[in-house]
Amino acid sequence: MSGDITMEFEAVSGALVRSTRVAVLGGGSWGTAFAAVLADAGCSVRIWTRDRATAQELSAGRNARYLAGIDLPSSIEASTDETWVAEGAEIVVVALPSQMVRNALAEMHLDLDPRTLVVSLMKGIELTSDQRMSVVLGEALGVAADRIVVVSGPNLAREIAERQPTATVVASTDLRAARTVARACTTDYFRPYTNSDVIGVELCGSVKNVVALAVGMAQGRGHGYNTTATIITRGLVEITRLGLALGADTATFSGLAGMGDLVATCTSPSSRNHGLGRLIGEGLSLEDAVVKTGTTAEGVKSSRSVLDLALSVGVDMPITSGVVDVLYKGLSVDEMARSLVARPLIAERTVTR
Amino acid sequence: MSGDITMEFEAVSGALVRSTRVAVLGGGSWGTAFAAVLADAGCSVRIWTRDRATAQELSAGRNARYLAGIDLPSSIEASTDETWVAEGAEIVVVALPSQMVRNALAEMHLDLDPRTLVVSLMKGIELTSDQRMSVVLGEALGVAADRIVVVSGPNLAREIAERQPTATVVASTDLRAARTVARACTTDYFRPYTNSDVIGVELCGSVKNVVALAVGMAQGRGHGYNTTATIITRGLVEITRLGLALGADTATFSGLAGMGDLVATCTSPSSRNHGLGRLIGEGLSLEDAVVKTGTTAEGVKSSRSVLDLALSVGVDMPITSGVVDVLYKGLSVDEMARSLVARPLIAERTVTR
Repeated sequence: MSGDITMEFEAVSGALVRSTRVAVLGGGSWGTAFAAVLADAGCSVRIWTRDRATAQELSAGRNARYLAGIDLPSSIEASTDETWVAEGAEIVVVALPSQMVRNALAEMHLDLDPRTLVVSLMKGIELTSDQRMSVVLGEALGVAADRIVVVSGPNLAREIAERQPTATVVASTDLRAARTVARACTTDYFRPYTNSDVIGVELCGSVKNVVALAVGMAQGRGHGYNTTATIITRGLVEITRLGLALGADTATFSGLAGMGDLVATCTSPSSRNHGLGRLIGEGLSLEDAVVKTGTTAEGVKSSRSVLDLALSVGVDMPITSGVVDVLYKGLSVDEMARSLVARPLIAERTVTR
Repeated sequence: MSGDITMEFEAVSGALVRSTRVAVLGGGSWGTAFAAVLADAGCSVRIWTRDRATAQELSAGRNARYLAGIDLPSSIEASTDETWVAEGAEIVVVALPSQMVRNALAEMHLDLDPRTLVVSLMKGIELTSDQRMSVVLGEALGVAADRIVVVSGPNLAREIAERQPTATVVASTDLRAARTVARACTTDYFRPYTNSDVIGVELCGSVKNVVALAVGMAQGRGHGYNTTATIITRGLVEITRLGLALGADTATFSGLAGMGDLVATCTSPSSRNHGLGRLIGEGLSLEDAVVKTGTTAEGVKSSRSVLDLALSVGVDMPITSGVVDVLYKGLSVDEMARSLVARPLIAERTVTR
């Protein structure tokens, strides 16, 4: 179905001739906000959540836990029954916790049409396999790579749910698939740009959380905007270096999914990784910081996988390596910060080619 | 003299065999903070200020107006007598208001040794000539381009004066000159990286203020981190595009003087351009905003010169153009923000080559 629909969209130059059916798996903040965008764009949207109370609340246009105070489009339907949610969906959006997604999807036993487009809203690298989310999705759902689409950008969920003007990147190895999803989520406040560099977009989304941890740690120690900007800048350099070694496209890293998302994540006080890093910078142990924030931020889980990836392709990632050393090897935040600024007097190394 | 000294520094691998004599022209926040760095690095430093009371205060280790609460190194000497300040200086650092520097230097009639290194701490484009600061300095002081060194990076003056870890870029067409200045200002908290791309470094320093105005405007209208990150990302893309057209090196833009300084300026609430933009976003006219902040932020002055430059080389700069339209042509901030996000559904354009 969706293959034909892509062409149909092209033929009508962007105007939807009928409502696209979309299933969203996961009712956290980003899943819910993206469901609202899809509904505002005219799609017919069903959300799956594990929790019955949340499903009832979503059907009534609210998500108090993740998006308090936001009125969601009334057309959104929600259920704990994944089969009903996914029934007839042309697009399935997956917004589940990244370290659990493989098992969660295996339990669902979804029977998807091979032409269904699968959208990943997830960030991170799977710890057990060191794989990107699109690869995990492809394996877990038995879907070909050209049916998988990744959405990533400077996209704090709450701001989007408030309908603030936002741009994002929609990436797929098949640009027609990316365009179909882009059209399905275009509103007057949400603007997708298409890209075919799935590897680059996913790496940016994973490593930015590690850099946000480093920024939080430095700020927790009292460092200001100069240090923050230096870590963000060097962070993008090391993400880019890793990406090039893994076959990504340089342009992705200087775009919205790269620099854009990195800057939003590292400067917003609402970022979980930033917040957890700050507590560690203030002197808490990783364990205490996790207890205090009530969550293990994604960057904590991804940092070692990212470093494994970097080592496997011989790429130097001093910030990621510093974060891993602070989290797991007892390096002090002061030593980390000093090692990032205090290097030999050399020409600045960035990435060119 | 300084030509020989460069070689001498190289020979002793970074250790200063005697104190370098440096004159700093201008006792504002950045001039004072950089003077403190030089003094901490072991240089013999004299500052010139127009105002006698400020000179007396600086000699006593304070600058209450620009760096309240900071203790400056006691070795710094200050005077209103430019001839005494510049006497025997191997390095002359210029930190004067960029639109006045040509006239101010003409009035000083400094008689510099042709081998003296001249350091620019200034950002912006001269309105009357559309020229970068290093070009203005070369003309005003009769100094060759390879004697001029530009210092620029994520360098909020107060944080440096507080001795927070900071990195910067020291650029000259002659890398030996850059290295000499880099060594003269290296301390355990201030780390310079050398670069030979003077054009790129200066363009970044000028256009970032225009982008900071746009960010401030959007935030003044209530937009959050998604919009901010999008403007910063697209801002760097348009600075890079201009730079490439003018012969700069791509790598500069993704480095500390490019992305680093842009991020620091656009996210710090203490940036004058950011603050002025915010007032305009809140609904004040340019005139009222200037009265309220007590200063015309550099980006206001540079925005038209930057746009002139862009037009002269056929480069599209939508953010700069939007800022000029808001400042001088009555465009509303809402229309500007919308035009930056709401574009046709196309592939994201960044800069590659």
